[in-house]
Amino acid sequence: MWKKRLAAVAVVAGAGLAVSIPAFSTAAKGKPAATVKDDGREVCYGCHDEIKAMKEGSKHAKLACGVCHDKLKEHLASYENKPVTTIDAALCGSCHKDEFESFFTVNYDSQPRKEKGVPTGRSPMMDKLLAPYGFTFEHNEPRGHAFMVTDQFVVDRFAGGRFQYKKRWFGVDSVGKTWDILEDKGPDFKMAESAKAGNPTCIQCKTSDHILKWKFMGDKDPRAKWDRTSDIIAVAKDTQNVVGCIHCHDPHGTQPRVVRDALIQAIDEKGAKMFAGKDGTTDLKVISFRDGFRKIGVMKKSDSRMMCAQCHVNYNCGTGYEFDTGKKVGYEDQRTNHIPLAGPKDLLEHSKKQNFYELRHAVTGARLVKPRHPEAETYFGSVHDKAGVTCADCHMPIMKNKQGKSFKSHMVIKPKDHVKEACLRCHPKYTAEQKLYQIQGIQNYIRGKMRKSEYWLGQLIDTYATAKRWGVDEETLAKAREKHEEAHVLWEWWTAENSDGFHNPDLARDTLTASIAKSKEAVALLNKAIEAKSGGARGAEPKKQ
Amino acid sequence: MWKKRLAAVAVVAGAGLAVSIPAFSTAAKGKPAATVKDDGREVCYGCHDEIKAMKEGSKHAKLACGVCHDKLKEHLASYENKPVTTIDAALCGSCHKDEFESFFTVNYDSQPRKEKGVPTGRSPMMDKLLAPYGFTFEHNEPRGHAFMVTDQFVVDRFAGGRFQYKKRWFGVDSVGKTWDILEDKGPDFKMAESAKAGNPTCIQCKTSDHILKWKFMGDKDPRAKWDRTSDIIAVAKDTQNVVGCIHCHDPHGTQPRVVRDALIQAIDEKGAKMFAGKDGTTDLKVISFRDGFRKIGVMKKSDSRMMCAQCHVNYNCGTGYEFDTGKKVGYEDQRTNHIPLAGPKDLLEHSKKQNFYELRHAVTGARLVKPRHPEAETYFGSVHDKAGVTCADCHMPIMKNKQGKSFKSHMVIKPKDHVKEACLRCHPKYTAEQKLYQIQGIQNYIRGKMRKSEYWLGQLIDTYATAKRWGVDEETLAKAREKHEEAHVLWEWWTAENSDGFHNPDLARDTLTASIAKSKEAVALLNKAIEAKSGGARGAEPKKQ
Amino acid sequence: MWKKRLAAVAVVAGAGLAVSIPAFSTAAKGKPAATVKDDGREVCYGCHDEIKAMKEGSKHAKLACGVCHDKLKEHLASYENKPVTTIDAALCGSCHKDEFESFFTVNYDSQPRKEKGVPTGRSPMMDKLLAPYGFTFEHNEPRGHAFMVTDQFVVDRFAGGRFQYKKRWFGVDSVGKTWDILEDKGPDFKMAESAKAGNPTCIQCKTSDHILKWKFMGDKDPRAKWDRTSDIIAVAKDTQNVVGCIHCHDPHGTQPRVVRDALIQAIDEKGAKMFAGKDGTTDLKVISFRDGFRKIGVMKKSDSRMMCAQCHVNYNCGTGYEFDTGKKVGYEDQRTNHIPLAGPKDLLEHSKKQNFYELRHAVTGARLVKPRHPEAETYFGSVHDKAGVTCADCHMPIMKNKQGKSFKSHMVIKPKDHVKEACLRCHPKYTAEQKLYQIQGIQNYIRGKMRKSEYWLGQLIDTYATAKRWGVDEETLAKAREKHEEAHVLWEWWTAENSDGFHNPDLARDTLTASIAKSKEAVALLNKAIEAKSGGARGAEPKKQ
Repeated sequence: MWKKRLAAVAVVAGAGLAVSIPAFSTAAKGKPAATVKDDGREVCYGCHDEIKAMKEGSKHAKLACGVCHDKLKEHLASYENKPVTTIDAALCGSCHKDEFESFFTVNYDSQPRKEKGVPTGRSPMMDKLLAPYGFTFEHNEPRGHAFMVTDQFVVDRFAGGRFQYKKRWFGVDSVGKTWDILEDKGPDFKMAESAKAGNPTCIQCKTSDHILKWKFMGDKDPRAKWDRTSDIIAVAKDTQNVVGCIHCHDPHGTQPRVVRDALIQAIDEKGAKMFAGKDGTTDLKVISFRDGFRKIGVMKKSDSRMMCAQCHVNYNCGTGYEFDTGKKVGYEDQRTNHIPLAGPKDLLEHSKKQNFYELRHAVTGARLVKPRHPEAETYFGSVHDKAGVTCADCHMPIMKNKQGKSFKSHMVIKPKDHVKEACLRCHPKYTAEQKLYQIQGIQNYIRGKMRKSEYWLGQLIDTYATAKRWGVDEETLAKAREKHEEAHVLWEWWTAENSDGFHNPDLARDTLTASIAKSKEAVALLNKAIEAKSGGARGAEPKKQ
Repeated sequence: MWKKRLAAVAVVAGAGLAVSIPAFSTAAKGKPAATVKDDGREVCYGCHDEIKAMKEGSKHAKLACGVCHDKLKEHLASYENKPVTTIDAALCGSCHKDEFESFFTVNYDSQPRKEKGVPTGRSPMMDKLLAPYGFTFEHNEPRGHAFMVTDQFVVDRFAGGRFQYKKRWFGVDSVGKTWDILEDKGPDFKMAESAKAGNPTCIQCKTSDHILKWKFMGDKDPRAKWDRTSDIIAVAKDTQNVVGCIHCHDPHGTQPRVVRDALIQAIDEKGAKMFAGKDGTTDLKVISFRDGFRKIGVMKKSDSRMMCAQCHVNYNCGTGYEFDTGKKVGYEDQRTNHIPLAGPKDLLEHSKKQNFYELRHAVTGARLVKPRHPEAETYFGSVHDKAGVTCADCHMPIMKNKQGKSFKSHMVIKPKDHVKEACLRCHPKYTAEQKLYQIQGIQNYIRGKMRKSEYWLGQLIDTYATAKRWGVDEETLAKAREKHEEAHVLWEWWTAENSDGFHNPDLARDTLTASIAKSKEAVALLNKAIEAKSGGARGAEPKKQ
Repeated sequence: MWKKRLAAVAVVAGAGLAVSIPAFSTAAKGKPAATVKDDGREVCYGCHDEIKAMKEGSKHAKLACGVCHDKLKEHLASYENKPVTTIDAALCGSCHKDEFESFFTVNYDSQPRKEKGVPTGRSPMMDKLLAPYGFTFEHNEPRGHAFMVTDQFVVDRFAGGRFQYKKRWFGVDSVGKTWDILEDKGPDFKMAESAKAGNPTCIQCKTSDHILKWKFMGDKDPRAKWDRTSDIIAVAKDTQNVVGCIHCHDPHGTQPRVVRDALIQAIDEKGAKMFAGKDGTTDLKVISFRDGFRKIGVMKKSDSRMMCAQCHVNYNCGTGYEFDTGKKVGYEDQRTNHIPLAGPKDLLEHSKKQNFYELRHAVTGARLVKPRHPEAETYFGSVHDKAGVTCADCHMPIMKNKQGKSFKSHMVIKPKDHVKEACLRCHPKYTAEQKLYQIQGIQNYIRGKMRKSEYWLGQLIDTYATAKRWGVDEETLAKAREKHEEAHVLWEWWTAENSDGFHNPDLARDTLTASIAKSKEAVALLNKAIEAKSGGARGAEPKKQ
């Protein structure tokens, strides 16, 4: 289909300037023809000088505008006739075959719908610790990028179950356009024990489809088809593709870039400390389009730490409440589309300053901040980060295609499954067996700390319930809740993060033990108060450490 | 041994009609000789016309009566001298070698004595949720059919531990005659933390040995050696073989059949809805022998759904209590040998109508109905069932023997270990890797729901105990117990069933979430009542879903 | 390095008797030269006649004293100048290459830092059941012998985290001298949620380094550099090697031996019942050196049961309290270096007689006895033990080196990873698959019992806390604590022991179910008392077993 398209669009419509570009058949093989200047683009550049600046001299210089844009003739006839822009990764894939195909390759070893909240999972006590979050309805181990939209839509907490695989239980490995794979069971369909927690903002890091329909930060705007308050079902229906090439690569000039609004805002506000080089800055240049409707951040040199941080970063994406007033914060408030860029030890403080928490715990009523996939913040300051290693070095290593040609894998691998490619390039003195063993050592240790944090959070929650029953005073309960708030985020960070501590084991250890300490303080506090109220004292015995 | 026997019995004793049948050496190789009519069987047919009807014209037509029946001469001399019938699968195996050998093949990947009630098992919270059931003493993952008698006899809940492997801990892979493998430690032997929950009825779906000694439904009868009230130790001692060929194949005429009494009764009473074809009926014909002493159900066309449902179906097989009166129901009552043929959502109602439950929960006192391996009921109405797929299609696929000859595996495989044979015959467009991935998706999802059900049942039980301590009124407690009764069966069904939801994922999802909802209702009810009684209120906070 | 040394020391210094021994280049290849008598050793024998007795006629007869002892010349010049003794395994390894190399081979399948206190681990409820033990901070699955010192030093409960890998998280597979691998973060370094539970005694079964610096039983002595009360940090810093060849092999004469003081004492006091042959005795001969400063036990015939029991045995190695007075027992007391040689059913009674327990449980205050790696006691009386099988038969089987030469593996293997070598030599009729299956059957069964014991201990602890709150009388609480003391040791034994029951499944079953029974008794006792105190009664229902 795309090969045909490349041929078809090889003529830029408009102003009689249409020029045939037979070279495209070559382009499709990855070698653009030598001279394609005279393809009518100058007319486009007349208005779009920022495009010219990015395009000319770049690796995509030889591609005519019509390769990605349809209805140019109509657009040139009248500005009101908007051109149609193709953002489908398959178009890019017609030249960048290995990258495209690897991106959509299914890793059959990474099982689908693997619930985290089970004894063998990565968050065994989730049902108690996260009650009454939507996450308690279904929260699975992540799969590959090819599934990021469908996995989000079918999960029991997103749309109450109304989006299902057309092939029902057997659709789980289908890759492609969202609505070829899924069906909408309709507005009256609601499965038991499900949630409707999806919202337009959370889709922005799953797809690039709304890049021209979503104003910067998701604010309401007549030019924006969708905003933070839009009907989530309608937005979902308009989402056909997972995050595409254009999320990280500018299509006009191939410059490395970021497009996720809240990240650009956060870097702008906070400076780029988290992603800075040794000089304390990044080369990220923010470019504003269409009178601020949309911004992108362009880099000279590819830095996957920022590119991946568009999604692999903690963000608010749902409604919440204010810490001081307790008032509900709705989607109309920009705090519901916010990337804190704060580490696990700073997130609670950041959230208090921002005056925003997501919800109260079902038992203690503690005001909980909810971290989500905070890979960027976790990695910041780690041994590998300090050594200048970026995400892509380990997760998108050079691999070979079937013909033996090397290419940068866009499959986004788990290093432990590809130790040779991911680790040994930098650590050639080791065997894959040795490196895997070291990885396991870190993950085993941190998993141990996670389980201990969970145990103590559980003790805190149970003891709190007992304390209320025994009539412990509100002052003591308030202190315990505060400790719960602290202990919670220090723990949940690490089950939300996807490396079982590998990205930054020191930070993981520090944070998780701090969580345990806080929980123990709360338990001690509550037990003492219960003792005073109840008939018997809890056994206080010599501690041995 | 069996080859010798076939030669030896090739002469039917009696009435001077003995005729040599040299053809049997051929029969032993699977090719019965051309003419064997003149073997004396007409004398037998004189009384046993129902045998003639099944035998003549069938695939076994050429086998003389003496192949399976000894002491015929004595029997013909006097009716009182009963012939001896060989029901050992090895006799069948002398012709049906591949089927026989595959049936007794050990799957060494399926580990023995794998307790279900552990965090990594299929019922991690069993000790709390099933207290004080015998199942809490030992309840293991199932193994292959070759072990069905010995696994039942040695399990800690069956006979208090008095039956043990002769080779003690190392007898676990022994296959063969029960009492070659096991020993009886004697009546005074009782291991700590064990139960004596075995009973004659439950053995009826583990062996075919009692087929001529057990009256239909296990009622007392002078002609029956064993009945429902018999001493279980004596019955066990008389059990040498696992379920044999004759459970599913009529030996006289090779007709597909069922022999399990409670199943025949249930189909008779309920009609055959669960196993019906598109016309709403089955071709099962019930034949009564010996003045109703025994019944069999014979099919024209093999339907493994019914054959497997002889055992892979939920049944009562122990004593219990009446819902209304609370009176004990003993083995003399036919309700202790009953197959409800009800699905998970109907089982409690069915049991209430039947006025029978097995026992009260140790903490709440809820009257619990206990489902056992309900594969048939689960499968009913599933996608595969509607498509006309039967058990044997997936679990007994065509495989090849060492000589490369195809045969119907009687090993009864786990499809996930043999995806190619079990799935790809019908789904040729997929790879084994893909199909396995889809299977895992379903099982992962349902396992998640099972763990959530267990969490909430646990909460219910703990909150109930607290409520009693705080003096919550009996009316509220009674409501909570009723919800426990509902929530329990909706959950336990799925740990009793052996596919982790694969047989019917929609039903599994519906049922398990209904269990969660019921448990949550009970917890809310109890918490509210505790709050009213105790010093403090449980934190009621904004719910976010 | 060692080859050079062997050459260098081939001359015994002293008294002008120095004789060149060119034969050592041969010795290094494993073939000592024919005649090396005239190497000056007679001067040494003048004082050290016990060495002569062991050395002459032995396999090491031809090695000159200077092979292992430096500064002999100075020593001969003045008794006050102590010779320097090389105890490094590498010196032995220069001749015994396969043994040496196999000892330090890393099993990469045995993952590092695998916390036991997680749902998938061998002690999932440890945080509750062992509170407030140091073990709750970090307690990992064991790894190979090559790691025994570093694993001990870096574990979070040993030194508060001040000993860390120089390569931090990536040092986990380093093998060699302790302080090449680890660094000391200094006295002010203390990680959160860690313990400082290390002590000089516990190091004595991890290293042979202190063999000449530690008086028998670790008592204070001017001749001893270290004793039980020494600063643990200083002792650790002086520990460079894991347990070496000399722990089991006398270097002078290659006699099999034991050196661990508390084991020698225990065998002396108790007789050798646990390690006796059929005649009720062992051939262990205790030899005292330097006026009782040090003792060794020498065997005629190698018995790995005793050699391994130097470490793989339960021992006290920390401080504790007296049962009767409650007084603290410090390191100055010899009870802190004690090997009970008692089985799981006798340990509590033994400890009561000894008047020593380690600490009180955090919730119940029960006085807990803590078993540690009791492999020897567990194995005693097992089927394999009765058959005359010793540790080395299964864990150090004959294997082949790369050149195909057979040698006794000193890797100390897990039999399940090497079934052929470990099991089939004695059980040749089985396949490796079958034997592994049998092993799994035992371990699965015992793991089930362990999980059940833990469930009931957890119930005991929770119910105890509730009982105290409801004001249950001290008499009842004391009874419950006593039952906790009994139930605890009967359980913990089996998570401390490293075979998941395989070493003695009968003993494991008996002990674990006894633990369950004790816990159930305590729960019933407490529940009854709570019922009397609180508003409601716990549901007492018909029990069905």
